[in-house]
Amino acid sequence: MLANNRHLFDEATRVTAGDSCWQGQTSDDYWAFVGPFGGVTAATILRALIDHPQRTGDPLALTVNFCAAIAQGAFDLDIRLVKANRSTQHWSVEMTQGAEVATLATAVFAERRPSWSHQQAKFPQATPVEQTLPYTKVSIPWVKQYDFRFVEGEPDFSGRPQAAPASTFSKLWIGDRIPRKIDALSLMSMSDAFFGRAFHARRELMPFGTVSLTTYFHADADDIAAEDASRVLALADAKIFHKSYGDQTGELWSPNGRLLATTTQIAYFKA
Amino acid sequence: MLANNRHLFDEATRVTAGDSCWQGQTSDDYWAFVGPFGGVTAATILRALIDHPQRTGDPLALTVNFCAAIAQGAFDLDIRLVKANRSTQHWSVEMTQGAEVATLATAVFAERRPSWSHQQAKFPQATPVEQTLPYTKVSIPWVKQYDFRFVEGEPDFSGRPQAAPASTFSKLWIGDRIPRKIDALSLMSMSDAFFGRAFHARRELMPFGTVSLTTYFHADADDIAAEDASRVLALADAKIFHKSYGDQTGELWSPNGRLLATTTQIAYFKA
Repeated sequence: MLANNRHLFDEATRVTAGDSCWQGQTSDDYWAFVGPFGGVTAATILRALIDHPQRTGDPLALTVNFCAAIAQGAFDLDIRLVKANRSTQHWSVEMTQGAEVATLATAVFAERRPSWSHQQAKFPQATPVEQTLPYTKVSIPWVKQYDFRFVEGEPDFSGRPQAAPASTFSKLWIGDRIPRKIDALSLMSMSDAFFGRAFHARRELMPFGTVSLTTYFHADADDIAAEDASRVLALADAKIFHKSYGDQTGELWSPNGRLLATTTQIAYFKA
Repeated sequence: MLANNRHLFDEATRVTAGDSCWQGQTSDDYWAFVGPFGGVTAATILRALIDHPQRTGDPLALTVNFCAAIAQGAFDLDIRLVKANRSTQHWSVEMTQGAEVATLATAVFAERRPSWSHQQAKFPQATPVEQTLPYTKVSIPWVKQYDFRFVEGEPDFSGRPQAAPASTFSKLWIGDRIPRKIDALSLMSMSDAFFGRAFHARRELMPFGTVSLTTYFHADADDIAAEDASRVLALADAKIFHKSYGDQTGELWSPNGRLLATTTQIAYFKA
């Protein structure tokens, strides 16, 4: 049931090694409004790095800058190991379609050594997933690939007039619709799987696009595998919307209370 | 008094345009333990972009990955405009010394258009700067270039045994020691001017280094200039320390209560 190799997510993030660069293909299953869901784009970049023969260690940080709309179809990934030392690797990845750069990413991989360990953040209280209703109100392709269950902050897109902006905080369970064991790839994708905070604040949909996304991994592959989870408890919020751009911060927790990843992004909106 | 052109910070972040790349020089005034203060490195990269003849718009996002120790002396900045459209520019910057890449950065610049505006985050309460004592307990060169005044969470490096890790939260006023009007450059630098959260948690100094730093600007040059500020109210906290890496999040507020920038980083520590 949790076999990852034939899952739609693994199909969507598939890459093949070429001569000077790698190739991938957008997935209709994870399509958003005018291009592929950014989380799957980010996960595809991460997969190419994880599969790279020179890669050592586990993902520590990935930043993806979305430079242009990605057209349906094939793309190339130009991957470059910029610097490596005993325990870390610094990578650069450019996703191109023809002569155009669509995304520009940097990544850090690390062989994480044992150390003093302390989780400063507290595991958020939440209703158990079995007692939380699935969210089924949006029929965008990528959204349908996830099982979203809002504990707090379910979006209200009714767009009804209101005196003040609504809360931008959300707490929800996120799993793949077809269950899939959580790994760094799905964490990367889920770190972009929150609805735009501007939608929450204004209670309406509007033109919106992530410009830059950064995710930090706080668990290595062994740590993540040991959680044996198929969902995360996810938190998202925003601090500001100003002159067409707004931020978002997020946390992805294992059901056992381990903070697996934190994420932040800045996004364009038109309102 | 607030003339920015002869300030030590402006000397430290000075760059000159060359043929195929730009040049800069590390500053002893902003030296840290084993290399230049990362904030000044990040600000130097930002200055080269702001000064670049092809640059349009204002800084929106800057991510700097610190790949290797930067040696005292000269460095090159290889600057590339990767993609531009009507309102945004995507840049890549590599700082090199000889054949070695020392830092790898990506930046987004944007011409920010008027929009609906809303500051979701609340301006933190703080004692006025005049009633807050300067912090003078550390004599590292870069630290001496700043006027730090802790409202909460002044670090305690006594290293005395304790039952549990200490708080990682800090709230402080940060200004340049020699007053300098806040701009995007100083915001970039100040976003790395918090003491390592691991130092706070463990109440001791230890080998520590920022690996990746991301700052988002929530105000354009006009907005920042209109604040006419020479200090920010700065907040920092951490969520987790695990297997030699820990995170940090931060906010930089104008004294008038405007959120100018948010920042996050992941850092190596040895403990």
